[in-house]
Amino acid sequence: MSARDVNRRWLLARRPTGNVLPDDFAYHEEPVPDAGALRSGELLLRNRAFLCAPTMRNWMDPPSNSLYPSIPIGAVVMAPAVAEVVASARPDVPAGARVTTHSSWQDYVVVPDGHAVINVDPAISDIDALGVYGLNARTAYFGLIEVGRPVAGETLVVSGAAGSTGSMAAQIGKILGCRVIGIAGGPDKCAWLTDTLGLDGAIDYRNEDVEARIRAKCPGGVDIFYDNVGGAMLQAAVENMAKFGRIVLCGQIAGYTRSAPVPGPTNMMRLIYGSIRMQGFLQGDYAPRADEAIAQLQEWVAAGRIAHREDARSGFQDIPQTFAALFNGANDGTLIALLD
Amino acid sequence: MSARDVNRRWLLARRPTGNVLPDDFAYHEEPVPDAGALRSGELLLRNRAFLCAPTMRNWMDPPSNSLYPSIPIGAVVMAPAVAEVVASARPDVPAGARVTTHSSWQDYVVVPDGHAVINVDPAISDIDALGVYGLNARTAYFGLIEVGRPVAGETLVVSGAAGSTGSMAAQIGKILGCRVIGIAGGPDKCAWLTDTLGLDGAIDYRNEDVEARIRAKCPGGVDIFYDNVGGAMLQAAVENMAKFGRIVLCGQIAGYTRSAPVPGPTNMMRLIYGSIRMQGFLQGDYAPRADEAIAQLQEWVAAGRIAHREDARSGFQDIPQTFAALFNGANDGTLIALLD
Repeated sequence: MSARDVNRRWLLARRPTGNVLPDDFAYHEEPVPDAGALRSGELLLRNRAFLCAPTMRNWMDPPSNSLYPSIPIGAVVMAPAVAEVVASARPDVPAGARVTTHSSWQDYVVVPDGHAVINVDPAISDIDALGVYGLNARTAYFGLIEVGRPVAGETLVVSGAAGSTGSMAAQIGKILGCRVIGIAGGPDKCAWLTDTLGLDGAIDYRNEDVEARIRAKCPGGVDIFYDNVGGAMLQAAVENMAKFGRIVLCGQIAGYTRSAPVPGPTNMMRLIYGSIRMQGFLQGDYAPRADEAIAQLQEWVAAGRIAHREDARSGFQDIPQTFAALFNGANDGTLIALLD
Repeated sequence: MSARDVNRRWLLARRPTGNVLPDDFAYHEEPVPDAGALRSGELLLRNRAFLCAPTMRNWMDPPSNSLYPSIPIGAVVMAPAVAEVVASARPDVPAGARVTTHSSWQDYVVVPDGHAVINVDPAISDIDALGVYGLNARTAYFGLIEVGRPVAGETLVVSGAAGSTGSMAAQIGKILGCRVIGIAGGPDKCAWLTDTLGLDGAIDYRNEDVEARIRAKCPGGVDIFYDNVGGAMLQAAVENMAKFGRIVLCGQIAGYTRSAPVPGPTNMMRLIYGSIRMQGFLQGDYAPRADEAIAQLQEWVAAGRIAHREDARSGFQDIPQTFAALFNGANDGTLIALLD
């Protein structure tokens, strides 16, 4: 990558209805921000790669009371990124450093004083910074450990288990001594769960009755359900939770392309009589502990205990198509858009 | 009460559909159990009064996977009670003692070895043993403190706030320094919440838009929602929970007369982005700590900090009618059936 003389940007042209389409976005160019004009505390960043995360689809919805941000029509699309610090007016972040941060689909961005950034160890590649040590991995780490609170010997079921967050949650569960069942779509993904990740079982939601299979594979009930999907899978889990079970509400990807608020499970009495805890969270709740998660993940990766796959696609012009692949199952690992 | 020569019993004659009807029960007599025939660990109890608790309606439903017990057709109806120990084959419970326990709608019952009983202080009346120190009160105590985890200054909203459990949860919230808004049906109950219980506000669900009123009365959001009702009230709360809010799933009385499993709230994304915890529980989860709750409640009652109302009705023959009053709002305080 060499310095550019224009700042390429992808704007939200209209709100997606249902699946994301390339025409939901509009390409636009503007001058590169002036490094000499930074105010105190600001950083001029050059984005190097973007993480394509399912929850970004929510950010493209109209404003609601669902507490997630809503990108205004005509504004640049927000996205997690790894970026290089081009110029810094902030003492704790030197020019030349690489950081991961909440950024947007453009080459250059000026972030304000106090904007949260995480320094990236020079030994970590851009892809790993967004992949095995990235936002999805930290989400899995804190969601499983702090919300799920696994105890060795417990049974953990993960939906979206072949996905970026789910595969990390499942493997961390194994490392912590849980019996882990993953739910994924199709025999190839299920084979990857058992053969490569070493899970104790896999359920193919495209070809199996998820509720019946959970029941069969978890005769003592499900102690922790780590849910990335919601909808019918969450319902199937609710019906099979063990007493004192925990449901980790991480994502509801089954509902992201709906136009109505995502419905919850039925059978509330089972939550009461089962003393079941269902808890939402964001990895950002644990932002001050990001370094702890990355250090622990590095140790597990070095010990060969974490398998991970990234699906990195190059080309700024193709970002909308790359992002859309998240929602048709066409990605094969953590989906990352590299800038050219 | 003098010793009887028959054991009067109310059996479940058929499963209620919708509201409970007196014809759902059948009166029956059998011989009084023989005190001389107790096996080791058994107790012969004579019931003195029964608590009429809404969740008993669930126990009258067919078996399901909702984890609550299902009373078989033709079996005596299970109910919490205060009882006198007529004969004991268990060293820790002397004959003559009074206990609260899980009993059933009959004069006499033999409970098995290990059956959980709580000794009742002689200074506590039968009515208080089932009321201000009873199962509903302990439910409120543990649900609010252990599940809700209130912090002084937080905003607590209680549904069914004029009810037996709700009024205790609301008052404990006040004692612990919360700002407390109660939801109840009708101006008289709402006036009782503010004027007698000293709550900071009341919402009349019969005459007001609950969601709009919660929004207006809780501008910083709801930190804790103590839910006895479910349905539309739970939905209204979900829409107004503050970040890191807790929803205490205590009861779902709005759904007890449905024939389908009780549906949960929609807008799961709000639970995720709000990092909201929704948690079911039973007071029995804290059974080993019952004495702690009773001692604390006694201290608060002695200090004049707890108002309580009991609606005690006499007559074994009228138990079905007494119980049915729970579901048409005809009771005025904790509903208790005294045996004659």
